[in-house]
Amino acid sequence: MSEPDPSSTELEDLLAAPPVPTRRPTVPALEERLFRVHPVLDHGFVRVIDYMGDDAAIVQAARVSYGRGTRNTRDDRGLVRYLMRHRHTTPFEMCELKLHVKLPIFVARQWIRHRTANVNEYSARYSILDREFYLPRPEDLAIQSASNRQGRGDTLDAERAAEVLALLRRDAMQVYDTYERLLNDRGDGEPVDDGAPQVARELARMDLTLNYYTQWYWKVDLHNLLHFLSLRMDPHAQLEIRVYGDIIGELVKAWVPMAWEAFEDYRLGAVTLSRAELDLVRQLIAGADADAILPGSGLSLRERRDLRAVLGLPARGGDRGDHR
Amino acid sequence: MSEPDPSSTELEDLLAAPPVPTRRPTVPALEERLFRVHPVLDHGFVRVIDYMGDDAAIVQAARVSYGRGTRNTRDDRGLVRYLMRHRHTTPFEMCELKLHVKLPIFVARQWIRHRTANVNEYSARYSILDREFYLPRPEDLAIQSASNRQGRGDTLDAERAAEVLALLRRDAMQVYDTYERLLNDRGDGEPVDDGAPQVARELARMDLTLNYYTQWYWKVDLHNLLHFLSLRMDPHAQLEIRVYGDIIGELVKAWVPMAWEAFEDYRLGAVTLSRAELDLVRQLIAGADADAILPGSGLSLRERRDLRAVLGLPARGGDRGDHR
Amino acid sequence: MSEPDPSSTELEDLLAAPPVPTRRPTVPALEERLFRVHPVLDHGFVRVIDYMGDDAAIVQAARVSYGRGTRNTRDDRGLVRYLMRHRHTTPFEMCELKLHVKLPIFVARQWIRHRTANVNEYSARYSILDREFYLPRPEDLAIQSASNRQGRGDTLDAERAAEVLALLRRDAMQVYDTYERLLNDRGDGEPVDDGAPQVARELARMDLTLNYYTQWYWKVDLHNLLHFLSLRMDPHAQLEIRVYGDIIGELVKAWVPMAWEAFEDYRLGAVTLSRAELDLVRQLIAGADADAILPGSGLSLRERRDLRAVLGLPARGGDRGDHR
Amino acid sequence: MSEPDPSSTELEDLLAAPPVPTRRPTVPALEERLFRVHPVLDHGFVRVIDYMGDDAAIVQAARVSYGRGTRNTRDDRGLVRYLMRHRHTTPFEMCELKLHVKLPIFVARQWIRHRTANVNEYSARYSILDREFYLPRPEDLAIQSASNRQGRGDTLDAERAAEVLALLRRDAMQVYDTYERLLNDRGDGEPVDDGAPQVARELARMDLTLNYYTQWYWKVDLHNLLHFLSLRMDPHAQLEIRVYGDIIGELVKAWVPMAWEAFEDYRLGAVTLSRAELDLVRQLIAGADADAILPGSGLSLRERRDLRAVLGLPARGGDRGDHR
Repeated sequence: MSEPDPSSTELEDLLAAPPVPTRRPTVPALEERLFRVHPVLDHGFVRVIDYMGDDAAIVQAARVSYGRGTRNTRDDRGLVRYLMRHRHTTPFEMCELKLHVKLPIFVARQWIRHRTANVNEYSARYSILDREFYLPRPEDLAIQSASNRQGRGDTLDAERAAEVLALLRRDAMQVYDTYERLLNDRGDGEPVDDGAPQVARELARMDLTLNYYTQWYWKVDLHNLLHFLSLRMDPHAQLEIRVYGDIIGELVKAWVPMAWEAFEDYRLGAVTLSRAELDLVRQLIAGADADAILPGSGLSLRERRDLRAVLGLPARGGDRGDHR
Repeated sequence: MSEPDPSSTELEDLLAAPPVPTRRPTVPALEERLFRVHPVLDHGFVRVIDYMGDDAAIVQAARVSYGRGTRNTRDDRGLVRYLMRHRHTTPFEMCELKLHVKLPIFVARQWIRHRTANVNEYSARYSILDREFYLPRPEDLAIQSASNRQGRGDTLDAERAAEVLALLRRDAMQVYDTYERLLNDRGDGEPVDDGAPQVARELARMDLTLNYYTQWYWKVDLHNLLHFLSLRMDPHAQLEIRVYGDIIGELVKAWVPMAWEAFEDYRLGAVTLSRAELDLVRQLIAGADADAILPGSGLSLRERRDLRAVLGLPARGGDRGDHR
Repeated sequence: MSEPDPSSTELEDLLAAPPVPTRRPTVPALEERLFRVHPVLDHGFVRVIDYMGDDAAIVQAARVSYGRGTRNTRDDRGLVRYLMRHRHTTPFEMCELKLHVKLPIFVARQWIRHRTANVNEYSARYSILDREFYLPRPEDLAIQSASNRQGRGDTLDAERAAEVLALLRRDAMQVYDTYERLLNDRGDGEPVDDGAPQVARELARMDLTLNYYTQWYWKVDLHNLLHFLSLRMDPHAQLEIRVYGDIIGELVKAWVPMAWEAFEDYRLGAVTLSRAELDLVRQLIAGADADAILPGSGLSLRERRDLRAVLGLPARGGDRGDHR
Repeated sequence: MSEPDPSSTELEDLLAAPPVPTRRPTVPALEERLFRVHPVLDHGFVRVIDYMGDDAAIVQAARVSYGRGTRNTRDDRGLVRYLMRHRHTTPFEMCELKLHVKLPIFVARQWIRHRTANVNEYSARYSILDREFYLPRPEDLAIQSASNRQGRGDTLDAERAAEVLALLRRDAMQVYDTYERLLNDRGDGEPVDDGAPQVARELARMDLTLNYYTQWYWKVDLHNLLHFLSLRMDPHAQLEIRVYGDIIGELVKAWVPMAWEAFEDYRLGAVTLSRAELDLVRQLIAGADADAILPGSGLSLRERRDLRAVLGLPARGGDRGDHR
């Protein structure tokens, strides 16, 4: 078990410690979840380490900006929804969340592309990674999608899935054997085998595969967190990062329920229509026939297909072939 | 005339200098505009000082990301539109623009809130500002909007406009007189009047009004520039920053015409429908009557009014009062 | 009194409210200071609105990065000092502070140049600023420094100081009279004088001078806050921002005393020697005479003077003239 | 050969294309290096794709900030050195460099932690990585350092080095065999083996080891690039990223030689003394004996050892054991 992992002892200590008094905004529903491990994938997790602010803190910051103008005119929920709708993003930046996340390296590589966050990652230059690697569930193994260039298509049958998992497991086990052999470290820097080579940690780690787990503290403000979630909870995101997005989404919902509701209505459940799509929607409302106006609209096949899906119109046989 | 201002001499020098050869991506339409002063407001301007990249550089960066996947499947324009539509923003970050801008301080205060840019501003701690201040055109003077809390309503009549401008001019002239008196500097640090006080520049400047002009070099990547323009070319933006947005928009159009066309179609001319609005649009396309379904939809009055405008439906008398 | 100002009522309410229990890291010394107004300049203030983390949170984040390597080898204080010394900055990013600050606009313009922070500023497009402007204390009025191009030199005598303050006050009062006249607003949007012009807030504000007070919520992580303080507590910083830096420094010291001590030792009290200066120091330690080796060292006059001051060597008459 | 790699054909095309005229700042020494492959490690490289600005652009931006104050007082070189010395960083942000870099994934993971840059990375969700992995040179294989927790100590002897490289090669080859088998793709999406499983690219890639090569476009301003180099050219940086730093440093030197010279003098070759160290240096210059004053100075053993090295004082036997 890796040292920075929250051992059951550490967790019990944290939860056994009596709460202390504070005058800061405090959210009981998140206090309950504090420090607890929310499992993700086969060995990963998400834990809330700390938070700053609540729904009222968003409102408070907005009232600083808008001053007298916001008095008596609407309740807090209305103001939060107004801010979300009109993309007045700075009040949401006034809340902050700090998470401890354990995740496969290939997921970490996507995640880190969100630059507006603070990160402390476990360093394999200083320390030794554990023999913990991600293996998909059989039902998550799928072929390359034909229609979505970056994603997955049909699921593999049981036999082929077993074959794939056996290969992944074999390679992961073998590279860790090599890793241990290269480190040749009893745990105190002394070699296990005096006659064998001993290699610096920063070198040995290069032999590990990308499904090995790493972990980090990740701290982010609510505006940037919601932007992260809007991208990573999207069906086009890779499943292995989406499952983290889903768990974090539940935590955010417990933390700032008003902001979350507005986010669902104005972001997750929203659609953006291009200039040309808006023009078509106006015609459709005025009674035009989709089959008549879409083909000559200048929209690509994929745009036409997507628009039909968004508007709840039946798909048409012709809308295939070009997946963009 | 302020020293860093592009004097006609400096400008002539720059334009008289023979072009030099480069292997970098070069855009003739922007080369023509390089260094030239594009006037904005009464004393402001925008000048392109330098640029990096072109439409092809966006495509080239995208092809690095998507590799073989992007070969032969679409032309450059299609790829740029695909990137804009799906908010694949990093390829647009591969282009960069450097502007010299002269602008009133109150406009600079809004502008600087865009954090992802590089700025070198004229420092009134080191140097002396000129007697140059912004006065609106009479037709731009307007009362506070009743329906838009942050904006303008009806225009003032000619007599009242003249009265306002006289006050603004009087105050601006007086504070500059004070500023000069406090500096008490012949231009070489020696006092104009030996018997009068002499005050440090960093102190004297505090007496200037917010319509005095400052200037800066502002460097930004295309993705963040387009985000800036989407906010600052918006009708809700203050007129005095919008006019800068409009000029910069024309320069961007000359620089990266494909990206600009996609930006107009998928951003400037686009609308976002919330979950509830999308549901209403589906009903309207299916034949429902707007007057019947909007009132009970849960949308605020302002949302209902905005949705009618977006969809080209006639406004309704009842949709007034609450401007949000 | 401006509405978002912490009125004594609001403050009493906040302080009267009973503390609530939390499991988050909590710092009693900062809890005591929470919400309280720390006056700065004549009308400004700094208030702590919220905070996240403490000294232990820095250590905790570092231990995630360095894993087993940091166990049992040093106490927390030693680790914090090690991190500060070696510029391992990410653990300091794990703490966050949210302040409410009231400050003159010309100070706000310097402050906002620190881009890695979250800001919600009072908007003079939505709301009306109060008749509150900054006037220096007589003893803070000084002439332009001859030796420091951006700063102040000798203080003004009492009579001249009074003359300067009278001018600043006169202008500030007059522009506010104009501002009120242009707004022509009883407080509810209705004109005070039906026959007079009424101008939108976003326009009227341009007549205010740069010493008028604005206010904002400002949220920043500890690493970036310390960087801000290292620049703004510096003797070269303008006095009017330095006094804010000093107050914030005291709050940080109460909040994270270990980090503050390390910051004082390794940043505030530290000096950086260039390659050439280091070479001279080595020679001086080996017994060389400063007067013999400095003149031919290639250092500029200002560098030589600065180096003498840093090393506690007597100044030399020749080291004058070129202030850089 | 991977598709986005600069094939000799593409390179010849780029270099054969006639230069075009521009009025932008142009640096002949960098034009010569444009597009050319600078090899790093066994399969990596750095190429300059584009650049904006030159030494004069730094000076020009500084003159905007300081206005008249900078006229006639110093030459460009002196101003650039002044800016570097006093950490006036914004003028350096006015230059921008765009690189194409091919690098092992474990190096990319360190590199990406520098957040203030623009990145387009080759995506293994869309495309297939080549069978290209990093193997250290035998002379770069070393054991974990006893005195530097994150680095390398003594080099391995030839026999043990060969043993290590054989293991690394065996694992890298095997995981690529698995990768190809899982992709099961003839290159057109059709399976090589109809009876075998076929897995999405985003899944198959997790089996690759961290020494596989990836590549990206990386665009950064000069200030942040120099900060990157100051960290990554440091002897404490891992060798495999340091070699990239060295190559990029040579390119920067060709591009902005004045800025580079100042960077070498005021950053790379500079040292920072803590408050306590400065106090000791003053005593040493005044004639104190190092062996007498260091032990009781409060400095840690490592600080004492480092200070001796910096000042060119002989090391002392006692200064061992605690490597921090």
